[in-house]
Amino acid sequence: MEKEKGTVYLIPTFLSDVPFDSVMAPRVRDEIRSISYFAVENEKTARRYIKKVVPEKDISSLVFYPIGKHSDDAMISSYLAPCLQGHDLGVISEAGVPAVADPGALVVERAHGMGIRVIPLCGPSSVLMGLMASGLSGQCFAFNGYLPVDKAGRRARLRELEALSLKNSQAQIFIETPYRNVQMFDDILSSCASHTSLCVASDITGPDEYIRTMTVAGWKSSGVRPDIHKKPTVFIIQQKGVKK
Amino acid sequence: MEKEKGTVYLIPTFLSDVPFDSVMAPRVRDEIRSISYFAVENEKTARRYIKKVVPEKDISSLVFYPIGKHSDDAMISSYLAPCLQGHDLGVISEAGVPAVADPGALVVERAHGMGIRVIPLCGPSSVLMGLMASGLSGQCFAFNGYLPVDKAGRRARLRELEALSLKNSQAQIFIETPYRNVQMFDDILSSCASHTSLCVASDITGPDEYIRTMTVAGWKSSGVRPDIHKKPTVFIIQQKGVKK
Repeated sequence: MEKEKGTVYLIPTFLSDVPFDSVMAPRVRDEIRSISYFAVENEKTARRYIKKVVPEKDISSLVFYPIGKHSDDAMISSYLAPCLQGHDLGVISEAGVPAVADPGALVVERAHGMGIRVIPLCGPSSVLMGLMASGLSGQCFAFNGYLPVDKAGRRARLRELEALSLKNSQAQIFIETPYRNVQMFDDILSSCASHTSLCVASDITGPDEYIRTMTVAGWKSSGVRPDIHKKPTVFIIQQKGVKK
Repeated sequence: MEKEKGTVYLIPTFLSDVPFDSVMAPRVRDEIRSISYFAVENEKTARRYIKKVVPEKDISSLVFYPIGKHSDDAMISSYLAPCLQGHDLGVISEAGVPAVADPGALVVERAHGMGIRVIPLCGPSSVLMGLMASGLSGQCFAFNGYLPVDKAGRRARLRELEALSLKNSQAQIFIETPYRNVQMFDDILSSCASHTSLCVASDITGPDEYIRTMTVAGWKSSGVRPDIHKKPTVFIIQQKGVKK
């Protein structure tokens, strides 16, 4: 008789250092408690997370596999070997949910290829929560990851996303390396049209959570400069057509 | 002294009828317990949800405002009047999180316009959880809502999304009215290229949860026809370029 395969669980982690009960369902703790094999973006922070959530768990007995830019198909397949022997595998990224704006998709892709079941657990996602709270279009949206770093390329991309948002009535979401957030904010204000809406969603779920949507003209005239330097931030722009 | 304004809380609800602890953080219950004003997609199901989550709450004392296609700016502004008087307002849609593939964004937009704080609570989203578990690109993706209903328009749109997915390395997410899911599945198999990947994610978080990604050729050759008739389902396609 063939042994039943294990399952790949996509395990969320915190966006900010807050109490477990504020963002996580008890089931997340239950699954972490029962899993011994983990594919993780960063072993040190994954160990710390597991220790925090299930303090009685014997961390030294767990197996950790690194996932990231350098994971190749053969490595990923080897991470899934425990599943073929009936063990579950948990996937944990650095912040929020795995495989969305974070590594993990390669493990999931290989799991599907190997006929291994994949179960996503509910947890915080800065992309989703920023969009929810933006007031911009949740009926049609695109997540674009990082924009170009060079100034000219970034401005061109911002204008391109702005045009797409108008043409497709599509909210355009993107992120930036935290220490460049202020620069990004300034580039949006100087590149986009005055009636384009900009949502700045920073430290989502955390003590300094700041989510605010105004038009570019509104941000400029209010003089508000959000305190986003080095804080995880999601930017969303949408041009809705000239209203007056 | 000006009275402090209330907050708009974006309150998730279930995707499927499962225990609260499997998908919801205890904080969601705490916030529902303390709120008396709700903007809801459907009053009857919102009452049932609140009763299930906080059985001791006196439902008859709550105020419900309908949100949906017929909500105009003046109505929405009136819904936010309690916030100006210091009360909190909860927004609840029919399934999952408000304002993403569900109503709620107009309330959020007006709240930002009136300087009212918006706080998104973490909860299940079929769009996000389907994408997480698809193995397709979570670094770059678009949610497109519903595709055209007429066959020719739908096939044309499917080919357009497929081309976009290749050009932009962008996973393309869409949904369908549940009783048309099987037709949509068939249309994807007959419209898209054999090496295009298709994820079918159905009854997410529920007892019949089914999430599977294969190429169009793989779906065809396996003969697998997922049992998705009348079940809430998310479709995701991505063409990654011809590999062989």
